[in-house]
Amino acid sequence: MNFPSKLVENAVEAFSRLPGIGKKTALRLVLYLLKQEESVSEEIAEAILKLRKETRYCTNCHNISDSEICNICSSTGRDKGLICVVQDSRDVLAIESTGQFNGVYHVLGGVIAPIEGIGPEELNIESLFKRIEKEKPRELVFALNSTMEADTTAFYISKKLLPSGIKISAIARGIPVGGELEYADELTLSRSISLRTPYNPS
Amino acid sequence: MNFPSKLVENAVEAFSRLPGIGKKTALRLVLYLLKQEESVSEEIAEAILKLRKETRYCTNCHNISDSEICNICSSTGRDKGLICVVQDSRDVLAIESTGQFNGVYHVLGGVIAPIEGIGPEELNIESLFKRIEKEKPRELVFALNSTMEADTTAFYISKKLLPSGIKISAIARGIPVGGELEYADELTLSRSISLRTPYNPS
Repeated sequence: MNFPSKLVENAVEAFSRLPGIGKKTALRLVLYLLKQEESVSEEIAEAILKLRKETRYCTNCHNISDSEICNICSSTGRDKGLICVVQDSRDVLAIESTGQFNGVYHVLGGVIAPIEGIGPEELNIESLFKRIEKEKPRELVFALNSTMEADTTAFYISKKLLPSGIKISAIARGIPVGGELEYADELTLSRSISLRTPYNPS
Repeated sequence: MNFPSKLVENAVEAFSRLPGIGKKTALRLVLYLLKQEESVSEEIAEAILKLRKETRYCTNCHNISDSEICNICSSTGRDKGLICVVQDSRDVLAIESTGQFNGVYHVLGGVIAPIEGIGPEELNIESLFKRIEKEKPRELVFALNSTMEADTTAFYISKKLLPSGIKISAIARGIPVGGELEYADELTLSRSISLRTPYNPS
């Protein structure tokens, strides 16, 4: 496209660096911003700058945080004896939005992927072990994705924790609520049969 | 959603002010930015700020521009005798991307819409008349949308220009290239028949 303005072109380029935003969408956003008050652009730009400059990772659970210890770790209402191990902060947000979990988290920052050169040292695994040693939680829940790498990671961690005697669980796998059996893959369906739960009409 | 960080929440809010971006997409963009180098966020924020602060409108054609006269108006390779009248800068970009138009533009900044309180005074119409008087172009092409308001605007301008004797045309309306007759509305189809063009296989 032949832009009449270098500044418009730069802004379009900038927006289209974001995932899922192509040139056309970027242009739509740019033209929208041009029509709005200057304060709208200023607020968006400021939020982006602050986001990257002022957020950090909680030194305890490695979740995104505004302060040294995140507000989940520092909350007195949370069950510190139950640690949910997740891959990244996105998963914390997903679980938090269910409102069903009252424990604390540990964000690994990824999963073990030897092909990509990611070993246990690159992840927040050592700090998990230290945390378990110090805090002595009752239970660890793996809430990882269903990939080979995630399975490897869970296996690695559980193996290392064997001597500690901590109870280890994983989130339930099965047919999604509202999902149709017909469209479920064989593995999910066969697992959901073998891992069947007591029927509890309520 | 219960955000662990106020800064993340602010950034999500900021992104979701943009058209077509909901909370979920905004969160995806935020998490993407958090994973990137700080320079990425800085560049995006800077482009947004500069976009709104430093762009202005060409004093001649009212298109978005970096300088007082836009690079289309100041180009020596452009046919100044042919002025294309469009509603906004977006339309200039759309026409420019075809590479088929070598004239210059005049951006109205909207169309006459009495219900919304937009009269000819609110638009760049007077400056179009002045420009025609001064530059004496041979032809004016209306490239406006197919709405009642746009038709009114074109009618108003053409009526006022009657004494000047300038040639006035409008972009062709008809069945889109690749469009199917079956799905075309009656008005478009009936117009495309009455405004039929000589058959020219090439």
